[in-house]
Amino acid sequence: MEGEKMITEKLAHFVAETGVGDIPEGALKVARMGITDCIGVTFPGSLEPLGKIMRDYAKKMGGVAESSIIGSNIKTSPYLAALANGTMGHALDYDDMGGFGHPSVALAPAVLAIGESIGASGKDILAAYVIGFEVAVCLCGPLMESHYTRGWHSTDNFGTLGAAAAVAWLLKLNVHQVRMALGIAASLAGGLRQNFGTMTKPLHAGQAAANGIQAALLAQAGFTADENIIETPLGFTRVFGHGEEVDWAKASEGLGKTLNITAPNFSGIAIKPYPACGGTHGGIDASIFLKNEYELQSDDIAEVELGTSPFLPQVLIHHRPKTGLEGKFSLEYTVARALHSGEVKLRHLTDEGVNEPPIKGLIERMKWVEKYPMPSLGQQREGLGATSVTVKLKDGKEYSHEVSISKGLPQKPLTSDEFNEKYKDCASTVLSKDGVEKSLDMLSNLAGVKNVRELMETVTKK
Amino acid sequence: MEGEKMITEKLAHFVAETGVGDIPEGALKVARMGITDCIGVTFPGSLEPLGKIMRDYAKKMGGVAESSIIGSNIKTSPYLAALANGTMGHALDYDDMGGFGHPSVALAPAVLAIGESIGASGKDILAAYVIGFEVAVCLCGPLMESHYTRGWHSTDNFGTLGAAAAVAWLLKLNVHQVRMALGIAASLAGGLRQNFGTMTKPLHAGQAAANGIQAALLAQAGFTADENIIETPLGFTRVFGHGEEVDWAKASEGLGKTLNITAPNFSGIAIKPYPACGGTHGGIDASIFLKNEYELQSDDIAEVELGTSPFLPQVLIHHRPKTGLEGKFSLEYTVARALHSGEVKLRHLTDEGVNEPPIKGLIERMKWVEKYPMPSLGQQREGLGATSVTVKLKDGKEYSHEVSISKGLPQKPLTSDEFNEKYKDCASTVLSKDGVEKSLDMLSNLAGVKNVRELMETVTKK
Repeated sequence: MEGEKMITEKLAHFVAETGVGDIPEGALKVARMGITDCIGVTFPGSLEPLGKIMRDYAKKMGGVAESSIIGSNIKTSPYLAALANGTMGHALDYDDMGGFGHPSVALAPAVLAIGESIGASGKDILAAYVIGFEVAVCLCGPLMESHYTRGWHSTDNFGTLGAAAAVAWLLKLNVHQVRMALGIAASLAGGLRQNFGTMTKPLHAGQAAANGIQAALLAQAGFTADENIIETPLGFTRVFGHGEEVDWAKASEGLGKTLNITAPNFSGIAIKPYPACGGTHGGIDASIFLKNEYELQSDDIAEVELGTSPFLPQVLIHHRPKTGLEGKFSLEYTVARALHSGEVKLRHLTDEGVNEPPIKGLIERMKWVEKYPMPSLGQQREGLGATSVTVKLKDGKEYSHEVSISKGLPQKPLTSDEFNEKYKDCASTVLSKDGVEKSLDMLSNLAGVKNVRELMETVTKK
Repeated sequence: MEGEKMITEKLAHFVAETGVGDIPEGALKVARMGITDCIGVTFPGSLEPLGKIMRDYAKKMGGVAESSIIGSNIKTSPYLAALANGTMGHALDYDDMGGFGHPSVALAPAVLAIGESIGASGKDILAAYVIGFEVAVCLCGPLMESHYTRGWHSTDNFGTLGAAAAVAWLLKLNVHQVRMALGIAASLAGGLRQNFGTMTKPLHAGQAAANGIQAALLAQAGFTADENIIETPLGFTRVFGHGEEVDWAKASEGLGKTLNITAPNFSGIAIKPYPACGGTHGGIDASIFLKNEYELQSDDIAEVELGTSPFLPQVLIHHRPKTGLEGKFSLEYTVARALHSGEVKLRHLTDEGVNEPPIKGLIERMKWVEKYPMPSLGQQREGLGATSVTVKLKDGKEYSHEVSISKGLPQKPLTSDEFNEKYKDCASTVLSKDGVEKSLDMLSNLAGVKNVRELMETVTKK
């Protein structure tokens, strides 16, 4: 009951009183991964139609030239840079997952924009990211199901409070100011899931980052808000849709002790190895394994059987995709692509890519069956994406492989090479080869970067 | 059922297809009143601590010098000007009420900021205000009770959509773009009532205005969102807390035909004659009547009896106020002030004002009794504020007066002189005497102003 009453204050103490030195190296490493991956996917995101819209909007509004829009030569206000970068970062749904939704596109644009504005160090940026992540995940724990079910996009509603906490840490706000920042942020949070499938979904990430900045800066200047906004009767918990009492003491017992960001489960961060919906990743992994193991040629394949839980067909709704965007939500296309090419890259998730005849032919030879629970399936949420791929060749041979924990999940992280390859694939859509290497060098040693401005110079255009 | 399905589209047609000529003169006149009053109360609001915070924040973020912050010499982006002006306008709770909450502080800053940016005419500003008002009130009708009860501040959640509609009209968006603007706006709406009593309450008005601008500008540039955001399963209606089906056909049957803005009830606009909570206004009216009618001197008063519904004590919680802010929510203080001074002005709602000895003495001679329903009380919402004041003099005489519809409500509008006096009282806190007259002249003929930039020059400082 005491915990119930005091969660906002407890979170504020955590934000105000955690020093860089209190954060384990392992957590900073995951934050580096999240920030690097977020910057990476922002490059191709910036080439999408919404990239131009966000840059034009930022130019139209104008702002002090303190914070960079990634992949452009525009410097603008921290608010607008975070808005644009968060939106572009989430545009392709190629950004990381876990924690409270899509963590890095809400947090990284906020800490980068303010970090660049105040000249923070790389290590400070990493620490601020961890702080914001832990605050958002602490709230998300007991509230995710009810808030999400009601219709809120967790990347926005939890992300706004997480971003506010991250920026509050960077600005060294005191306990009272952090409480005010969270109180303001709760009134700025929003984001309807109904807008999924439109540009407004990625806008939610940009809003979370930008509003986190707005809330923290106003709090720093003395702006006031309710001091117990999370748990108070008409506060964040209840108004966004949680009807039950929350045992906050229990929900926050690990706060500042056991960090969620390094947890080997869905609380941690999953880096997407493929630019498609996370639900396709098990199938892609299985297909690449089969392709390599048995040196498959797609022409030799007579039939492919896809086995999944009944959950996946609800998400992967495009069985005969016609556009790159539909291809992202097509198990058939992504599996066909993996069996055909042995990889699934950005260039494959295009309108041209999904319409290549050999791939379309292979899709026609597929069937989808329900296999649930899979033998290997545990109780963890990731299990819902478990997928088996069974390939029958024209010569009668049959090969099958099943993946329950797909590559990139915290339990099966990308290798360093795979991670860097993804970054390079993404960054090269905008930067020169030299620019890609330079920025990756900087990001690989982010904890040692003296001033984030140096980093931002490498991820923008001259 | 068809109406249920089509309200977003219907609203979009209303916004996109209503011309200036379609709006009755009477509606434009009420809009002029709302905009004038909003600008007026923004002057003293700008002198509050949050005024400096908002100006500093706007300067810190920077922006194209297109839109003015009222009462200052700052020009900034439309977004930031609307954010600052809306917040300062609502700071004193002296702004108008009705429709969907506090209509003008959400709508006027948006149409003024964009109007100044694009060089719109005064008449266009007025028409845009009416459009935004009607959209927000149409939504508010069936949803107010459930959304407000859940904890949302109607000035923010309905106001954001209203402001988006108003700006969409000014920018001449087509039907599709208006639907996108409403879809984006729904994801930006928020505002927790829990933040009442803090600076974040007025921030909600600024957010509504600024986010309305952001939504409409993004939609104009081709940004996408769900096209049926109001009525769709996880849309605005339900996610913000309305559980029942809505008969939108019925709720919107008057849209574009019978305007709410000129309705002689709470759907219309009430201009506050006194800078205190609306709940005190009946008592103040009754006291001023008694003071004038019987030439009362506060020293001669032995006892005052206040009779109200049981609703008022829930709102007017400060029985022995110590600060100007507490005085706004004190029936005792405002009645004592009216009996003593015969008026209640801005200068009385200060820390000094509430602590004047004769007033404090009079408060000690008051008692509060429940009188409900009042004989004159109808079913209208305003009836909840009905108040009787009974004065017993030391010489044994007793006078009583009861007010159920207080001055400023749509049924009992301020006279033109009273309205202008309020504006002057407010504007003179910042502008010179000459400046006050000049701006009031301009506002009195707003429909004839060629370019809103001329108006904004008169309400800013050189």
